[in-house]
Amino acid sequence: MTELIWVNGKVTKLSEATANYEDRGHQFADGVYEVVRVYKGRGGSGGGVPFTLTEHLERLMRSADGIRLDVPYRVDEIAGEVRKLIDTSGLQEGMVYMQLTRGIAPRNHLFPKKPVPTLYFFTRELPPVPAPGTAEGVKLVTVEDERWKRCWVKSIALLANVLAKNEAAEKGADEAVFSEGGTVTECSASNLFAVGRGVLVTAPVGPKVLPGITRQVLLEVAAEQGIPVIERNPTEYECRCGEELFITSTTRELSWVSHWNGVQIHDRPGEITLRLHRAFQERVRREVGAYQTAMV
Amino acid sequence: MTELIWVNGKVTKLSEATANYEDRGHQFADGVYEVVRVYKGRGGSGGGVPFTLTEHLERLMRSADGIRLDVPYRVDEIAGEVRKLIDTSGLQEGMVYMQLTRGIAPRNHLFPKKPVPTLYFFTRELPPVPAPGTAEGVKLVTVEDERWKRCWVKSIALLANVLAKNEAAEKGADEAVFSEGGTVTECSASNLFAVGRGVLVTAPVGPKVLPGITRQVLLEVAAEQGIPVIERNPTEYECRCGEELFITSTTRELSWVSHWNGVQIHDRPGEITLRLHRAFQERVRREVGAYQTAMV
Repeated sequence: MTELIWVNGKVTKLSEATANYEDRGHQFADGVYEVVRVYKGRGGSGGGVPFTLTEHLERLMRSADGIRLDVPYRVDEIAGEVRKLIDTSGLQEGMVYMQLTRGIAPRNHLFPKKPVPTLYFFTRELPPVPAPGTAEGVKLVTVEDERWKRCWVKSIALLANVLAKNEAAEKGADEAVFSEGGTVTECSASNLFAVGRGVLVTAPVGPKVLPGITRQVLLEVAAEQGIPVIERNPTEYECRCGEELFITSTTRELSWVSHWNGVQIHDRPGEITLRLHRAFQERVRREVGAYQTAMV
Repeated sequence: MTELIWVNGKVTKLSEATANYEDRGHQFADGVYEVVRVYKGRGGSGGGVPFTLTEHLERLMRSADGIRLDVPYRVDEIAGEVRKLIDTSGLQEGMVYMQLTRGIAPRNHLFPKKPVPTLYFFTRELPPVPAPGTAEGVKLVTVEDERWKRCWVKSIALLANVLAKNEAAEKGADEAVFSEGGTVTECSASNLFAVGRGVLVTAPVGPKVLPGITRQVLLEVAAEQGIPVIERNPTEYECRCGEELFITSTTRELSWVSHWNGVQIHDRPGEITLRLHRAFQERVRREVGAYQTAMV
C-alpha cells in the first residue's frame, strides 16, 4: 500500500513529499491536527470509509479558531478531498493524519500578515481494531500534568504529551493518566472512563480535557444503551477501585484497563465496557454501511 | 546575502532545503532550539562573530536533556560547524537559528527506538542593534500564563508564546508579560528586569522562566558594575511604578519599556538601563574582538 499525501491540493507519495523548515508548524508548533480512523467497508471499488469524518473536521475548525487561524477550506471541501485520497490510495483499514498550520513565513512569533496555511493529510494502514474483549488490558500510570491550559485545542504542541507517554512506557505501562489533587482528567492520547454502580464517570471537556470524538460517540452510545453518565473528574480511588475502567481513542476505540500504577486492578474487560464497545462497533458498521449505500 | 542551512552535516541554500512532514519537530513539537546573535567584527575575511555561542549550545544540550534527547554531537563540534556556515555565507550582522528534533519516524507518541535526531541551523541577516537609548520604548501588556510547566526547556512547542505575543500585538503592544497573582515571570520571547532603588529585580529561572543567555550575561555585567540583583518575581506594581523597566533578548539585547497595559510609564530609557546596555555592548565588542584576534 503506497501512502499518499495531499498538501494544499497536490497529491504525491508521502515518501517523496517535502516540507519546509520555516513552516510555522515546524518552528512554533503553530498548528492543529486530527487523526481519522478508516474502516474497511463491504469491499467493492475504492478505499475504506473514514468514520466520523465530519465531526473530526468540525473539531479541526474549532481548534483552528482556538489558535486564531482562518481555514481557507470548508468542511465539506476537505471531506471530499480526504475521501478521494483514501480511494486513490486504496486504503481499507487505517487512518488519515491531518495537519493544519499557519504556513511558511520567515521566523517571527507574530502571525504573518497574509498567512497561507499549510493543510496536509496522508493515508496509513493500521491493523483492524480487535473485537471487543479480545485485546490485552491497558496498563496505566498517573503522571503530573505539565501541559498548557488549552488542551481542548488539538494542537501539534504535543511535547508534554510525548514526555508523559514515554514516562509511562519507562514504568512498564502503556499510557499516562494526568492526575492532580487526587482526581484525573484524561490520558496522554486518550480519554478515560470509570464505571461505578453502573454509571460512567468521565472528565468534562475543558482546559485540560480534549473533546475526544470517540468520547463523544461513546456518550451517545451510552445514552442509547440507557447507561447514565456523569461528567466530572474521576477520583484516583474510583479508577483504582471502581468496577471497570477503560480509555477511548480514535485508532483503538475502547480499551479496557488492567493495571493502575503497576498494580493489576482487573483481569478481564468489564460487562459495561464490553457492551459499550459492541454497541460502538455496531454504530461504526451502520455508518460505514450507510455511507457505502449512499455512494452506490 | 544567501541564507544557508546546515542539516545533519549537509549545507544547502535555505530556499532549497526540504524538511519532512514526519519529522517529530513537525508533528509533536518534539525538539528544542536556539537563536544566536551574530555581530560584525572588524572586517576582514569570512563572516561575523556569533556571541556567546558556547553558552547557547550548552543550553541546547540542557534543553535536549530536559526532553530526554541524546545529542549526537559535542558542543565544540556544533560550534565549529556554525562558525564555518557563518563564514561560508558571509553573514556579518544577523542571527543563526538552530533546531534539534528527535528526527524522522512514523508518527507515534513513543520515542523511536533508534532516533536519528535532526539538527539544523541557518543564517539570517538582521539590522544591527541600535545604540543604547536610541530605539523606541517597548510597550508591554500582561497576559495570562497558559504555557506548560517546563519553560526552562527552550522547546519548539511555542504555540502558547505565539498566542501571547499576538494578543499583545492586538492590544497595540510589542510584547506580552506573563502575570499571575500580582507578580510577573517573563515575556513571550524575552526576560524582564525591574529597577527600584538602584536594585535589579528579575524572576529566578524555573518552571515558568527560561534561563536567557542575555539575562545571564546581564547578571554578570550588573555584578561588574556593582549593581545589586535580587532574583524573585517582580510584582506588577514594581513594573508599573518602579524607576526603570527593561527586557532582554538575544536579538535585541536590552530594550527599555515605555508602556505598561496601555499606560505610558516612562518617556526615556533610565540611567541604569543605559549604563547596563553600554556595558553589555562593551562586553560584546570585547568578545568579538578577542575571537577575531584568536583567529588571526
